[in-house]
Amino acid sequence: MLETCITNVRNTVPLVHNITNYVTVNDVANVLLACGGSPIMSDEPEDVADITSICGGLNINIGTLNKRSIEAMFVAGHRANDLGHVVLLDPVGAGASALRTSTAVRLMEDLKLDVIRGNVSEIKTLALGSGTTKGVDADAADAVTEDNLDVMVRFAKDFAARAGVIVAITGAIDLVADGETCYVIRNGRPEMGRITGTGCQLSGMMAAFLVANPDHKLEAAAAAVCAMGLAGEIGWANMLPGDGNSTYRNRIIDAIYNMDGKTLKEGAKYEVR
Amino acid sequence: MLETCITNVRNTVPLVHNITNYVTVNDVANVLLACGGSPIMSDEPEDVADITSICGGLNINIGTLNKRSIEAMFVAGHRANDLGHVVLLDPVGAGASALRTSTAVRLMEDLKLDVIRGNVSEIKTLALGSGTTKGVDADAADAVTEDNLDVMVRFAKDFAARAGVIVAITGAIDLVADGETCYVIRNGRPEMGRITGTGCQLSGMMAAFLVANPDHKLEAAAAAVCAMGLAGEIGWANMLPGDGNSTYRNRIIDAIYNMDGKTLKEGAKYEVR
Amino acid sequence: MLETCITNVRNTVPLVHNITNYVTVNDVANVLLACGGSPIMSDEPEDVADITSICGGLNINIGTLNKRSIEAMFVAGHRANDLGHVVLLDPVGAGASALRTSTAVRLMEDLKLDVIRGNVSEIKTLALGSGTTKGVDADAADAVTEDNLDVMVRFAKDFAARAGVIVAITGAIDLVADGETCYVIRNGRPEMGRITGTGCQLSGMMAAFLVANPDHKLEAAAAAVCAMGLAGEIGWANMLPGDGNSTYRNRIIDAIYNMDGKTLKEGAKYEVR
Repeated sequence: MLETCITNVRNTVPLVHNITNYVTVNDVANVLLACGGSPIMSDEPEDVADITSICGGLNINIGTLNKRSIEAMFVAGHRANDLGHVVLLDPVGAGASALRTSTAVRLMEDLKLDVIRGNVSEIKTLALGSGTTKGVDADAADAVTEDNLDVMVRFAKDFAARAGVIVAITGAIDLVADGETCYVIRNGRPEMGRITGTGCQLSGMMAAFLVANPDHKLEAAAAAVCAMGLAGEIGWANMLPGDGNSTYRNRIIDAIYNMDGKTLKEGAKYEVR
Repeated sequence: MLETCITNVRNTVPLVHNITNYVTVNDVANVLLACGGSPIMSDEPEDVADITSICGGLNINIGTLNKRSIEAMFVAGHRANDLGHVVLLDPVGAGASALRTSTAVRLMEDLKLDVIRGNVSEIKTLALGSGTTKGVDADAADAVTEDNLDVMVRFAKDFAARAGVIVAITGAIDLVADGETCYVIRNGRPEMGRITGTGCQLSGMMAAFLVANPDHKLEAAAAAVCAMGLAGEIGWANMLPGDGNSTYRNRIIDAIYNMDGKTLKEGAKYEVR
Repeated sequence: MLETCITNVRNTVPLVHNITNYVTVNDVANVLLACGGSPIMSDEPEDVADITSICGGLNINIGTLNKRSIEAMFVAGHRANDLGHVVLLDPVGAGASALRTSTAVRLMEDLKLDVIRGNVSEIKTLALGSGTTKGVDADAADAVTEDNLDVMVRFAKDFAARAGVIVAITGAIDLVADGETCYVIRNGRPEMGRITGTGCQLSGMMAAFLVANPDHKLEAAAAAVCAMGLAGEIGWANMLPGDGNSTYRNRIIDAIYNMDGKTLKEGAKYEVR
């Protein structure tokens, strides 16, 4: 199934509208192109309804939100909902500021979201109304571990059921859940945390995977997580002496570019709970 | 002549003011430095008149336009016109939204432009008042091909004559035309479309080429197109197993950095019609 | 001492709030991660007080300033001052426009700054009320050279004393001074000027170094300058035929990622005056 998910992206070239932060936007665009999708960026309220209309999905990332882009998120989100498009929310920094938390909560309440993807601190903030955070990175105290895995799987499913979304919590162990099923994914490398924007890239790519697999959205979200983690493993295996996080960034996107269904199928490490 | 064009850039270090999108802006800055120019970015209406005054050229790219940056485009454009500077318009996404189309049309009407550079869908939108588009990428149905080449050369010349600009239509076959002469250029690689921003990079570099070659603007625009396409070929020739679009992006800019007049002269593939 | 400075960064993972330009922001984030720090970006006035509160330092870079981000710089700066955080100003383009000059001067007057880091033209503009500039690059006529070194060391110390800050003037020869002591640093490569944003990267990294070394801020600022210059030397030594400024950018950040205290200590080239 994961194999089919990425093949469908490559065959259908889903166009994804991104309202995203200016820190990692270039990498988001390149990873979307790498996986077989096509990116377009627009965050002007007067522009976004038209732009999102020609796309298949909308990726809302609040990483460097401002009043103009927040307005654009709602305008685009409502239009995308009207058209039945895939909508994904990446609540970057929810819990780190009142504006980020309230914006993420309002987006969650006002829009019909397909997926919320964030680190565990961000997701806890949205699910529980509170959470610790270290800026845009998760707090270690929140981390999903082998020890708390049962509890966290239950948490992910419960939040997914309550919010009516797919929840993707990414970290050392990734969880992708709807109300009934949870993919527990163990791909990836800790060094990915030393690159800015691997989470943002995953959100953009995940939106493309959902657009291309409308009848299997949970599997598509899980496939995107496996692909990103596997790309982190392949990219790391290609590192040479002297290489660091900047080269690693390139190698991860390159690994997505070269990833076929067979590679993804054989490299994906997950269980379903 | 192409040889002289790039040498003049390297010898004069033209300073180019860019009002451009935040997706590809870093690559635009680095390719300008690579070709021998110098970039400066500013999009605040109160800042742009001063900034453009100290430059030789202005590159207006509407890729992630907003109301503030649109105002800045007009303020900077008028000042650049007053000072006789080179002004280039890259109408990213014209045809994809009403705001993008109307902004590009207004810029074309209000400003004295030296060049309009875009993909064929964007240029058709400006020339004919309509065009199909796939977001920020050209629609395949619009493409310049060997079969419709005569018609498209005529179209480019006619639009150039009518608008009083150099028209640069880039794609698998590139056309660079004024009212009388059209360069038909066959450099480049299809894989360049899998990198975000090769078009934006070309626009920035083209502005530098025109600033450095004020008496041969058509040749300068054609030289920039040849240089970018040739860099795509050289960069691709340097790709190793496992490399993908992120590395390819670096290799193209690197190829511009290392390109001398002789390389450009020998590698350029064009005819003049 | 330089050795300790970088080790302290790696051991304490200082969180730095960056209000910075959208041209080089991704590289700033990656170099902060490379050196052992953690970046967060926010430029919305309603967001920045919360964000800066959870950080240890604030890096204000006026590279693509606009009215919203200017307001955010003051809001964040005052909050950072209230909390006793490190505050660094990078006055990109001061002297190139009235808005940039006046904004930098106002920030210098209103805020308690720890460091001002810029090229010599920018620093002269702030210190003397005038200076020549070539956009965002220093004018060669202003450059610190072996011939004017005594005069420039005196200038740096005097400005530092008068403004109550550490002054970091970077170029072929770098000066890092407070009112009494000046580090004269000769690391680096001229080719670093062919990459956009090495100065911006240094500012972000320098903020992290100061946060991690609160009792030795002058040494920390000097250590960051040595580290960046040394990374430029290491990165250049790793360049292969065909590599250019885009690859060089990656190799410099990679060199920071791999730099330990011993490498920095042995590679740093400085004298204290």
